[in-house]
Amino acid sequence: MNDAFISALGDIPHSRDAAALRVKSADFSWFSPIMSAALAGRLAEVVLSPRTEEEVVRIASACARHRVPLVARGAGTGNFGQAVPLAGGAVVEMLGLEKMVWRRPWSVRAQAGIRLGALDDELRKSGQELRMHPSTKRLATLGGFVGGGHAGVGSVNWGILRDRGNILGLKLITIEETPRLLELRGDDVNLVHHAYGVNGLVTEVELPLAPAYEWLDTIVVFDCFERAAEFGMALATGDGILKKLVSVHAWPIPGFFKPLQLPAGKAAALLMIGAETREAFEALARAFGGEITLCVPEAGLYEYTWGHTTMHALRADRSLTYLVCIFPREDTLGAIKRVHAKLGEEAFLHLEYKRFNGYMTAEGVPLFRYQGFEQMTRLYKAFEAEGVRIANAHTFLLQNGGMKELDAAQIAFKRSVDPQLLMNPGKVAGLDDLPGGISGTALEAAQLPASGWAY
Amino acid sequence: MNDAFISALGDIPHSRDAAALRVKSADFSWFSPIMSAALAGRLAEVVLSPRTEEEVVRIASACARHRVPLVARGAGTGNFGQAVPLAGGAVVEMLGLEKMVWRRPWSVRAQAGIRLGALDDELRKSGQELRMHPSTKRLATLGGFVGGGHAGVGSVNWGILRDRGNILGLKLITIEETPRLLELRGDDVNLVHHAYGVNGLVTEVELPLAPAYEWLDTIVVFDCFERAAEFGMALATGDGILKKLVSVHAWPIPGFFKPLQLPAGKAAALLMIGAETREAFEALARAFGGEITLCVPEAGLYEYTWGHTTMHALRADRSLTYLVCIFPREDTLGAIKRVHAKLGEEAFLHLEYKRFNGYMTAEGVPLFRYQGFEQMTRLYKAFEAEGVRIANAHTFLLQNGGMKELDAAQIAFKRSVDPQLLMNPGKVAGLDDLPGGISGTALEAAQLPASGWAY
Repeated sequence: MNDAFISALGDIPHSRDAAALRVKSADFSWFSPIMSAALAGRLAEVVLSPRTEEEVVRIASACARHRVPLVARGAGTGNFGQAVPLAGGAVVEMLGLEKMVWRRPWSVRAQAGIRLGALDDELRKSGQELRMHPSTKRLATLGGFVGGGHAGVGSVNWGILRDRGNILGLKLITIEETPRLLELRGDDVNLVHHAYGVNGLVTEVELPLAPAYEWLDTIVVFDCFERAAEFGMALATGDGILKKLVSVHAWPIPGFFKPLQLPAGKAAALLMIGAETREAFEALARAFGGEITLCVPEAGLYEYTWGHTTMHALRADRSLTYLVCIFPREDTLGAIKRVHAKLGEEAFLHLEYKRFNGYMTAEGVPLFRYQGFEQMTRLYKAFEAEGVRIANAHTFLLQNGGMKELDAAQIAFKRSVDPQLLMNPGKVAGLDDLPGGISGTALEAAQLPASGWAY
Repeated sequence: MNDAFISALGDIPHSRDAAALRVKSADFSWFSPIMSAALAGRLAEVVLSPRTEEEVVRIASACARHRVPLVARGAGTGNFGQAVPLAGGAVVEMLGLEKMVWRRPWSVRAQAGIRLGALDDELRKSGQELRMHPSTKRLATLGGFVGGGHAGVGSVNWGILRDRGNILGLKLITIEETPRLLELRGDDVNLVHHAYGVNGLVTEVELPLAPAYEWLDTIVVFDCFERAAEFGMALATGDGILKKLVSVHAWPIPGFFKPLQLPAGKAAALLMIGAETREAFEALARAFGGEITLCVPEAGLYEYTWGHTTMHALRADRSLTYLVCIFPREDTLGAIKRVHAKLGEEAFLHLEYKRFNGYMTAEGVPLFRYQGFEQMTRLYKAFEAEGVRIANAHTFLLQNGGMKELDAAQIAFKRSVDPQLLMNPGKVAGLDDLPGGISGTALEAAQLPASGWAY
């Protein structure tokens, strides 16, 4: 590590301790055995922990002057290697920037390093809450979610982060000798959202808020998965019933949720329901033949859904891995049933109902026992054959994931805010190739098929 | 009028003044030239104005003992003859029952005669509001809306009144010598909702509430109606953008809104948009080439939409009348464009975007210069040929309207709460036929085609 770079940082806390470098160079990409292998040994050389925006500016300037690669990091809960430094250099841990900047009736502006859970707790004191959050809410940061996330608990009402109106504005610092502070608003926020942190250092984010209803953590079990999926769709599209989470799981997935002690062999719907419309919800559950086994004040049930489902499954059985897919809006239930009938023995279906492009549909995160690339490719193709679109959740390359369209405007913006291509070089193949090139598992992973759904 | 009946009422205020009888026997069915003719001369013999639930019970008992037909009445803003007494007898004006019973964080219970506008004003003081309301909010009553309405401003978010969770409960009084007080909850509320007040006297209603965002009355104009319709759908399905009203009008309809002074020849979208997501909304309007000509704090713009659109049109041109239809969910925009292309010169399209059965679609209320039954039938069929479902808005017969399915459970309930069939006899053909039989215009109107959409 360049000593001039370190001394340019002044009193900004930093660490070159080996254990710290290991921990702060990792994220949740261990979910994928393929990405784990591809990212093995990628380490930062220094961890920087700025406490103020001024310190972030100083870091950006120092990186530009000394040509030091850098990666922004929140809590490291991303699944796609967002926080893993591909080319060494500095990890910029943003947790010190954790202040709320201002609060309005239905919006909030806060620093990027604030934990979503802490932010949400604060908002709820006055009756509002985040429109959506990942299952890692307690750990994950605002900047990390906006930079590397796409949807979550609440998306059944509000769609995905990319949708107009779900991110109101953000401030970022360019990686230049004299860094600029840019405020992006309106459609421009999507130049930075879901770009995995390669487009400048985000220091503040402005979000709209949702009403904080009195949520009930609720479980409904069904003898048959198909019926559970139908119920999930009916609830998700039941406009009069308050809901925040509709997560449906085929057996054996409920068995992985040990503390919930769900009945063997049954499909389970994990839900958050508004107390005011509980009777309407109960009538719907009865109409679908579901058995309500839990309905209690909010107690963290969401930590068995979205990404946490995969985590609980992997804890129970380390041989499991996953795909990420989206069912077609025209025939959501038909495609779910066909996939379950044809592949259900091998790929256990986990559905998250969410609004997507204005229509209710389900994201699928099927779990299966990993047997290698051949199996993975076969499953990709079998899902696609039923009209299901697949994202490649096993590559760390931004555009190969199939989730983000990197158009000319996006590339031009990247070049303007990071002219020396210092932000995690290797993340955007073709633009800033991985030092040493891409090969082995990483290359194979990048070449997995992806039908894409640009979220 | 039976003197024993009148004396059984005791001190309940009542009137047999001819002017009062005329006014209180009328509603907004004058919107339809056909229904106007069919209902001409239908008059109550006495207007009763109870002030308490006890007085309503006394009225129910007296009607049952003395075999006096009765009609419940709120403000008389219904369009389908809901408040017109078909068989004389008593009109029971519920405006004296106007108290809020209780208030919870996200729900409210109030007496049936409270005006929706007064209720909404009170709710908004603490940040909540009605999920939906008719354009007649200022006049219309809670009981009238639940008894004879179906949707309104807010339905773009919350669907229609019938949807599970949009009516939490209601209390009604049966028409028996010893009236019973029934509390209906869950799915049972739909035994009374939209039954045009023939299933008992509703005295209290419990509704869920919505967050009262800071709404902006907004108008966007477009050179071309098709583009306005596309914009309307994009806004309605734009999950991140706060909206409460998406109402799109083909020229010449905007010309009927004199005080708004809209530009000649252009299509207009009348909207309510949340202030917090205004920038996102503006980006969307730009993307569709619309020109925002108004964006101000809420000032009653909704009184040009839904039923009020028809009223303003009729004020401008008394020869106009209307159809009520719903565009197919699978191809909403396609059907709108086909209908506009084929019939737009004759039938001017007015669209209200709303969630219906869990999906966004548009209700259409096309306006046209009335030329008689033959034209009406031709237009019905031309709309149906494009996949659009039509309700019969020109009959006062409940089931011929095509909006309410009267199944066996519904009929059995009617018989249990009104065993002598005293509630507006003639409203439910086949069950309690119109005294003197149905003939002339009323019969012709009942026989207009209706493809039905059971709301």
